[in-house]
Amino acid sequence: RIDPARLVARIERLGGIGALEGGGVCRLALTPSEKLGRDHLVAEMTALGLDVTVDAIGNIFGTRKARREGPAVLLGSHIDTVATGGLYDGALGVLAGLEVIATLNDAGVETELPIAVAAFTNEEGSRFAPDMLGSLVFVGGLHLQEALDIVSIDGKRLGDELTAIGYAGTGHGPKEIAAYFELHIEQGPILEDEKIGIGTVMGVQGISWTEITLNGRSSHAGTTPIRLRRDAGLAAARIAAGVGAFVREMGGDQVGTVGVLTLSPNLVNVVAQKAVMTVDLRNPDETLLKQAEARLAALIETVTDEENVTFETRSLARFEPVDFAPVLIDQVDETARALCLSTRRLFSGAGHDAQMIARIAPAAMIFVPSVNGISHNITEFTAAADLANGANVLLQVTLKQALP
Amino acid sequence: RIDPARLVARIERLGGIGALEGGGVCRLALTPSEKLGRDHLVAEMTALGLDVTVDAIGNIFGTRKARREGPAVLLGSHIDTVATGGLYDGALGVLAGLEVIATLNDAGVETELPIAVAAFTNEEGSRFAPDMLGSLVFVGGLHLQEALDIVSIDGKRLGDELTAIGYAGTGHGPKEIAAYFELHIEQGPILEDEKIGIGTVMGVQGISWTEITLNGRSSHAGTTPIRLRRDAGLAAARIAAGVGAFVREMGGDQVGTVGVLTLSPNLVNVVAQKAVMTVDLRNPDETLLKQAEARLAALIETVTDEENVTFETRSLARFEPVDFAPVLIDQVDETARALCLSTRRLFSGAGHDAQMIARIAPAAMIFVPSVNGISHNITEFTAAADLANGANVLLQVTLKQALP
Ligand SMILES: NC(=O)NCCC(=O)O
Ligand SMILES: NC(=O)NCCC(=O)O
Repeated sequence: RIDPARLVARIERLGGIGALEGGGVCRLALTPSEKLGRDHLVAEMTALGLDVTVDAIGNIFGTRKARREGPAVLLGSHIDTVATGGLYDGALGVLAGLEVIATLNDAGVETELPIAVAAFTNEEGSRFAPDMLGSLVFVGGLHLQEALDIVSIDGKRLGDELTAIGYAGTGHGPKEIAAYFELHIEQGPILEDEKIGIGTVMGVQGISWTEITLNGRSSHAGTTPIRLRRDAGLAAARIAAGVGAFVREMGGDQVGTVGVLTLSPNLVNVVAQKAVMTVDLRNPDETLLKQAEARLAALIETVTDEENVTFETRSLARFEPVDFAPVLIDQVDETARALCLSTRRLFSGAGHDAQMIARIAPAAMIFVPSVNGISHNITEFTAAADLANGANVLLQVTLKQALP
Repeated sequence: RIDPARLVARIERLGGIGALEGGGVCRLALTPSEKLGRDHLVAEMTALGLDVTVDAIGNIFGTRKARREGPAVLLGSHIDTVATGGLYDGALGVLAGLEVIATLNDAGVETELPIAVAAFTNEEGSRFAPDMLGSLVFVGGLHLQEALDIVSIDGKRLGDELTAIGYAGTGHGPKEIAAYFELHIEQGPILEDEKIGIGTVMGVQGISWTEITLNGRSSHAGTTPIRLRRDAGLAAARIAAGVGAFVREMGGDQVGTVGVLTLSPNLVNVVAQKAVMTVDLRNPDETLLKQAEARLAALIETVTDEENVTFETRSLARFEPVDFAPVLIDQVDETARALCLSTRRLFSGAGHDAQMIARIAPAAMIFVPSVNGISHNITEFTAAADLANGANVLLQVTLKQALP
């Protein structure tokens, strides 16, 4: 059994790094505050006797020696956050991994296979798109050089930022992975609504991120007749409102979000010259996600045509729905029940590093409830008992793999 | 007759200050580049022998001595610009005033009444709302202290910015004004469309600026079901799109613009917590403008209710339509015809300092054509011949008042 108080203390220690006034944290990927988080993590890994290595995209791996060399049982997640994030999203998976290690250390357990704990770079995708970037590069889904050349929302090259914080490593993660487990908060309302302790994650829904740039013509808000306008701001607003409308019309599991909308010159009496916006579409069903993308494309065509503005679109991320390994899913479910915890199978609405690792190894996830289903918000919260339950399931499934 | 080449040279000299790469200028009110523009203007006024004085809100006045003390004939406009402005909006009225002075100096004409040239502070309203702020304070329509406490879009107090650039003066403009004339580019397409040389401005349409702040709840774009969202971004987009729709529905002269729309945290996978936007509504008819305002208010109520977000609104500017002095309107018209120029009476779509001076003295405006009707854009342009025509009308109406 893991030590609940020690796990919570771990989460609070890391949560103090990049802490926002009024609660929550801001540790956007590869910023100075995230560097401090990384330094802290490396120190904790080292203190637990792990062999720490950093790869070329900045993923951090801490490996515990085993009886024999062999494929690793990998536990991981990320420590970057959104700008207004909570203490649990990502941090839990990494720190529960350390708590598993600490528990095994205390009990003097030597495993058959090595156990490694990973913190993947830029999972959130808030500062650099796509999300799950570090794990995507790790599994070979994105070329290292391409990833290093990605530019952040604040105009910085990823490779330069990585070097600046000293995390452009030369090491590499485990060459072979026996199984990957990621403990994470649900970030949605289902488990809490149904009073369930552990969510057994079946897979991750498809994610489609599009950036749209609209080019109109700046002109005078008082003197320019409506028919002569080329209002990039109005076009952007109509597209954003249209996304809200078609998503409601599609219903079911379809979600859609315009999280970014920026006008230039953004002045009260100037018709906007330019607008940049993002659309985040998700659906567990690839066919429906494609339908949503088609509706977005048609909407952009209609609106830009009517508003007489030109546009460019750019795909920032596109991941098909992912299914986790059935054997591991069953194992998570059985393990939780054996610990007398209620379980429920569900799909993940958020993207996770596990979906990338699933490309090269059996992967699964364990969810614990999020109070009010809230995440990507400073009030994100999961009760200590739920955190401990999740970590205990993680400990047991890890042992089943590493000490068979 | 004024010297056309000299007038154009004046405009180009001032246009070089705050010049943007690729053309146009950025001299937002009370910024370092606008200070340079002010310094330049004061130097030109001094070189022309004018007695220069700056009042407490930073309005600059240059006065030419006359045969007798008495009410001044005031010529003016502004030298601040929007962020992506042209060379003519505002600058023309001030610099044509200097050209009138230079012409009288060259001809050795002594007038009966003093002639003064004014550059009013923050006419554009882009950095500090309301627009026409300097002339509004000058005519007593806004208390000095209230104006000094206004905060800019970049979070600075107007009074502090005025002091920082050294234009918090202790002087004052003319105590009495016989007549006020403002030469300005039309900033709209009518004169060019109808191939007319001089626009005789009847008045200025009503202006209503509202800032709307929408407060929702940041949450995860992937995991938050649509029904549980409080998406401030979607609410803002629906309001902006709705303004576009009701303005088109109202038709006629109604215009409406959402020039500012800012989301927080403005990240691709975070439902927006907060949105701040502005709505600029204008109509020459006060009753119709009130109808538009009522539609906006109803739209905000409906959308915020449906999207489950809260809101606050703040009036940034509200000016009723203004009529200029009939006697001066006729004088502009007759003067232009006497110079063999085609004229047309029209209403101004843009706000102007003249509409504030009209509260305390007879005021009128002279418009010259804007190529493609474009203004608040770096490609704003008026042909030299049109500039000269406007300045010649300004010279003649000035003489009619100052040397009766
Ligand atoms: N778990 C999580 O919040 N991932 C961020 C990537 C996304 O789903 O947008
Ligand atoms: N003339 C002019 O562009 N004034 C700016 C104020 C406004 O009309 O918005």
